Amino acid sequence: MTERLKQQMDFLLEVDKEKNIFRQTHLSGGGRAENDAEHAWHMALMIYLLREYANQDFDPLKAMVMALIHDVVEIDAGDTYAYDEAGLATQQEREARAAQRIFGLLPEDQKAELLALFREFEDYETPEARFAHVLDNLQPLMLNHSNNGGDWRTHQVKKSQIYKRNAKTADGSRTLWAYMEDMVAENIKKGNIRDE
Amino acid sequence: MTERLKQQMDFLLEVDKEKNIFRQTHLSGGGRAENDAEHAWHMALMIYLLREYANQDFDPLKAMVMALIHDVVEIDAGDTYAYDEAGLATQQEREARAAQRIFGLLPEDQKAELLALFREFEDYETPEARFAHVLDNLQPLMLNHSNNGGDWRTHQVKKSQIYKRNAKTADGSRTLWAYMEDMVAENIKKGNIRDE
Repeated sequence: MTERLKQQMDFLLEVDKEKNIFRQTHLSGGGRAENDAEHAWHMALMIYLLREYANQDFDPLKAMVMALIHDVVEIDAGDTYAYDEAGLATQQEREARAAQRIFGLLPEDQKAELLALFREFEDYETPEARFAHVLDNLQPLMLNHSNNGGDWRTHQVKKSQIYKRNAKTADGSRTLWAYMEDMVAENIKKGNIRDE
Repeated sequence: MTERLKQQMDFLLEVDKEKNIFRQTHLSGGGRAENDAEHAWHMALMIYLLREYANQDFDPLKAMVMALIHDVVEIDAGDTYAYDEAGLATQQEREARAAQRIFGLLPEDQKAELLALFREFEDYETPEARFAHVLDNLQPLMLNHSNNGGDWRTHQVKKSQIYKRNAKTADGSRTLWAYMEDMVAENIKKGNIRDE
């Protein structure tokens, strides 16, 4: 085995730990919490199958790789719930350190590539990052809606928090954001999301 | 919401069930069994990061979509362990029925596309299918090796079974197959795999 292949396999084994990072979202059917690897799988598949709804042309391969790796940093930094204000304040610094360590297991060229993709996703400026973020938000919304809003009720989530988190979703896809707004409105009506 | 988007979302919610289909392989660290969604995520990432080792040029996007969907049929047909001879005898027919139902949730064009990709993977003839299969086999080998061969010992797996399952792995990647052969040899030496 070459040193290069050893580094690649070390990274690929390390990221197995994503399967033990649990999110606040629950699987459809109201079962257990979802983990980061499952979320990334679902998100990548959604990017591919819903790509016709992106506002701008984009490279699906690039956006899907972004999706597959966007939560790798949570192996060190943990999952920060979308509406946990205290956690969100330190999230960026914790995740930047984690990215250096984990992507640093790879050979130099692939470390640079994945770090750049991770940052591009975070920076939210390219068509790939914009559309990947749409699915990062739609995927848990879909699951939560299918569970009659259980996670929103647990965390007493307000409409304003969802709108703040999705401030740029329409930049990625006007069509999917309109669909998400309908879902949010329905869950406000049902009392699952607080109308504030 | 258009009928088309409804069909796409119905499929995307249905495949959430893959997260409840557990495999015989255990997560690294000897924890719980891995599920199909986690395996598909890991496999897609491995296809991307190890693509330089494919024998033939291939389209990584196509191979990764194959990986993301290759186990969707197990929602109906269940997981068939690689070395379960009785299960393997009926696997193909059970999975073909499942593919019709599950991909059939999608709009006609995407149903046709994903059914074709699923069959192409199963047929093992294109460069994408060949390389995707390498990672379908290397991913659990990597995990099992990291767990000192626990799953092989549980199932008393023989060398000949691993070689039979990997009969075409070198067609996808000579380099990765050589790496896998080394891992198998090491686990035979340790008594984790039966030398038969």
